[in-house]
Amino acid sequence: MSAAEEFSNYPPEVREEIARTRQVVSDLHAELPRNGLVVWTAGNVSQRVRIPAELGGAADGSADLLVIKPSGVSYDELSPEKMVVCDLDGTMIHESPHKPSSDTAAHAYTYKHLPHVGGVVHTHSTYATAWAARGEAVPCVLTMMADEFGGPIPVGPFAIIGDDSIGRGIVETLSGSRSPAVLMANHGPFTIGKDARAAVKAAVMCEEVARAVHVSRQLGDPLPIEQKHIDSLYDRYQNVYGQK
Amino acid sequence: MSAAEEFSNYPPEVREEIARTRQVVSDLHAELPRNGLVVWTAGNVSQRVRIPAELGGAADGSADLLVIKPSGVSYDELSPEKMVVCDLDGTMIHESPHKPSSDTAAHAYTYKHLPHVGGVVHTHSTYATAWAARGEAVPCVLTMMADEFGGPIPVGPFAIIGDDSIGRGIVETLSGSRSPAVLMANHGPFTIGKDARAAVKAAVMCEEVARAVHVSRQLGDPLPIEQKHIDSLYDRYQNVYGQK
Amino acid sequence: MSAAEEFSNYPPEVREEIARTRQVVSDLHAELPRNGLVVWTAGNVSQRVRIPAELGGAADGSADLLVIKPSGVSYDELSPEKMVVCDLDGTMIHESPHKPSSDTAAHAYTYKHLPHVGGVVHTHSTYATAWAARGEAVPCVLTMMADEFGGPIPVGPFAIIGDDSIGRGIVETLSGSRSPAVLMANHGPFTIGKDARAAVKAAVMCEEVARAVHVSRQLGDPLPIEQKHIDSLYDRYQNVYGQK
Amino acid sequence: MSAAEEFSNYPPEVREEIARTRQVVSDLHAELPRNGLVVWTAGNVSQRVRIPAELGGAADGSADLLVIKPSGVSYDELSPEKMVVCDLDGTMIHESPHKPSSDTAAHAYTYKHLPHVGGVVHTHSTYATAWAARGEAVPCVLTMMADEFGGPIPVGPFAIIGDDSIGRGIVETLSGSRSPAVLMANHGPFTIGKDARAAVKAAVMCEEVARAVHVSRQLGDPLPIEQKHIDSLYDRYQNVYGQK
Repeated sequence: MSAAEEFSNYPPEVREEIARTRQVVSDLHAELPRNGLVVWTAGNVSQRVRIPAELGGAADGSADLLVIKPSGVSYDELSPEKMVVCDLDGTMIHESPHKPSSDTAAHAYTYKHLPHVGGVVHTHSTYATAWAARGEAVPCVLTMMADEFGGPIPVGPFAIIGDDSIGRGIVETLSGSRSPAVLMANHGPFTIGKDARAAVKAAVMCEEVARAVHVSRQLGDPLPIEQKHIDSLYDRYQNVYGQK
Repeated sequence: MSAAEEFSNYPPEVREEIARTRQVVSDLHAELPRNGLVVWTAGNVSQRVRIPAELGGAADGSADLLVIKPSGVSYDELSPEKMVVCDLDGTMIHESPHKPSSDTAAHAYTYKHLPHVGGVVHTHSTYATAWAARGEAVPCVLTMMADEFGGPIPVGPFAIIGDDSIGRGIVETLSGSRSPAVLMANHGPFTIGKDARAAVKAAVMCEEVARAVHVSRQLGDPLPIEQKHIDSLYDRYQNVYGQK
Repeated sequence: MSAAEEFSNYPPEVREEIARTRQVVSDLHAELPRNGLVVWTAGNVSQRVRIPAELGGAADGSADLLVIKPSGVSYDELSPEKMVVCDLDGTMIHESPHKPSSDTAAHAYTYKHLPHVGGVVHTHSTYATAWAARGEAVPCVLTMMADEFGGPIPVGPFAIIGDDSIGRGIVETLSGSRSPAVLMANHGPFTIGKDARAAVKAAVMCEEVARAVHVSRQLGDPLPIEQKHIDSLYDRYQNVYGQK
Repeated sequence: MSAAEEFSNYPPEVREEIARTRQVVSDLHAELPRNGLVVWTAGNVSQRVRIPAELGGAADGSADLLVIKPSGVSYDELSPEKMVVCDLDGTMIHESPHKPSSDTAAHAYTYKHLPHVGGVVHTHSTYATAWAARGEAVPCVLTMMADEFGGPIPVGPFAIIGDDSIGRGIVETLSGSRSPAVLMANHGPFTIGKDARAAVKAAVMCEEVARAVHVSRQLGDPLPIEQKHIDSLYDRYQNVYGQK
């Protein structure tokens, strides 16, 4: 069954967007082991498939879809057609030999309640997870942290799989922060972005600053950065950095 | 001499299973350096060859065989035909230019006394070995630890090569624990699984959680996870996670 | 438009030197991820294009050019023609779809005020950045540090992007030191050299000694090295080491 | 000039042995970056060329030669014909565009005074160098340390390049120890072996145990191993381990 046939109750434009998104999500998973963020089958990347109102979508994005990694499959064996497609309740909308990631409910909840979010990443990257295990936010003591996170990386509540509690913890914590990353207590980081690539970048940067600030703190207290400087760095980076 | 001729006192089904297992064990060794668990020739993977009663095996598995790495051979030079086949007393049952790993007695003892175990892995991975050197169990403060280990990773006794003492220490420690990993004091981790692949996964996860909890502890005390949450996470992961 | 046409108001010798320098700078960027100094698009290498007086240059080097990485482009996608060429006020002197690195002003200021400098590198390498976050110089307690740095690696002031303050901090700090590396507070290392390759080497060595001294300090106080020995090691290494 | 012509005052058997040793030493250098022991051009491997008395050698080995890395050449650019050949006073015995490693005098002194030594390796590997910077021996608290080193890894004196002091420090420290590795204070490890391969293995193991014991010590005191157990492990490993 081709991807087009597989989603035959969606118009061709949506089916094409699903196919394109499965390729993107499959490819981006390679960045997680490459950047040392995951071991074995841990970690997952997802991306929203936006469905415009004229193609049957909802104005608030609640009828959008998400594409995510299958559960427990190794990074070497991923391919676009193995990526799983779910609605924003986390229910799989096609037949597949693969179940979606066990973290799908948390991704779906995030897309449903944060319409501007186009990508979500979850890892157990070592240093971010170490801060999460202490339930301690990473303080903003590096200019590159001010650039990317605009302040500390906050901690979310302890929550276990089985209901909405992880998703709610992510959404509530990130709603009160500039940071695209949240450290779920005793668990690990979740990151968001305008698309999956931006969320992967945030996951990479989150681990790097968690590590550098950890190392710095091992031998003393890092110097604080004044709030006005954090604001200025964040503003410039979000608006000026990179190519148009 | 072909593998079939080599084990001519076994029926063809067993000879085929030996050949298949040698391939699996040879291939899985590549995961140890790839995941940073070993240096030089250290570390070894083995897998049980089950011999059903109708093919001359024993009901309690005591007539089974094991396939293990040759001693002191570098990871680059491993191949299926170099893998050594032993009985569960650790005695080599074929002619070969290669001696079995010097840890074979510990693997054999484990298979003999834990009939459900199908794979065993031993490494000196850095962080797990560091906990082992202090004789300190890794506390269960991460959700991924609750998933995979169902509680702390326990410490086994100090024991030296030369008699059954390493094997006994592994079996006694693991018999009283959900954990598929034990940290032998001053030595390093041994892990078990339903097959060699599962034992390799446990070795990878053991090092990762030993590292993340170490890092977390360097700057304070990780938050404990309530026992009921550990139980719930362990139960879900063992029964629901991954593909069928 | 070829590189030659692109810079048609410069004589052919300068245009060839620009082309050669773009190749060198593009290639050297591969050393940053290879040596673990950067994640994602962070970090940048530049090299001076010297313009002799007879080809229209200035005696004090102030009419020279610099070649630098484009802003926010990933390491995999770099190529010579994407390298950006600026004057020593940091102004781009050609049309290009790429903007220069957001650190260009700091590089340009350094070339303008330190005429002997032929290459500049900036990274956020983890251990160097950790010292920078505490505002603490790396003490000279290793012979390889005496060789390469001739003393401690000094700390520069906190400075934010937007004016000359980073460049001034670099130049003032390095002017009073033998070290080719400065740790800008809360930010990260900048290194200099006679060309870009030498500055990359200094960036690699800076991270390595920051890491080794950090690790040493974690369990006690490193032994000091007497100043006369530091002087002797530095002198030998600068004058005798390596091939002619 | 071919290798055979290059050393025309030596008999053909010695010229062949020189050629073979240059290949071995060139190849083994790849193990240093591969095992994370070196950055940039740091580190070097050498091997003795034994000249039997009947071919013009001396009974005490003092007329032997050594083959070593050229100074300041990057690991990517090494090849057999770039390896430098010296006598045991450290004097180069052939014409070459390459100077020998700046550590050649220390290697030569070691071969001259320890006739059983066939290979020497020097690195600045991070954790071993960190212990060396504190002038602190690595205590023997791991079974794999007892296996390979037979006790603690000792510290040698602070010594600078320019006379025999590094070589003397190595020889005096190792003469009183089972260990094939010595940590030269504020400098880094030197290791020895029956050939260059064995010395490389000792360098790899030295860094690994320096790292594991460091990590263990960060959170408490490792358990001591009784001397009788150290002796027993060392004896077995030296005499039984590995293939014949």
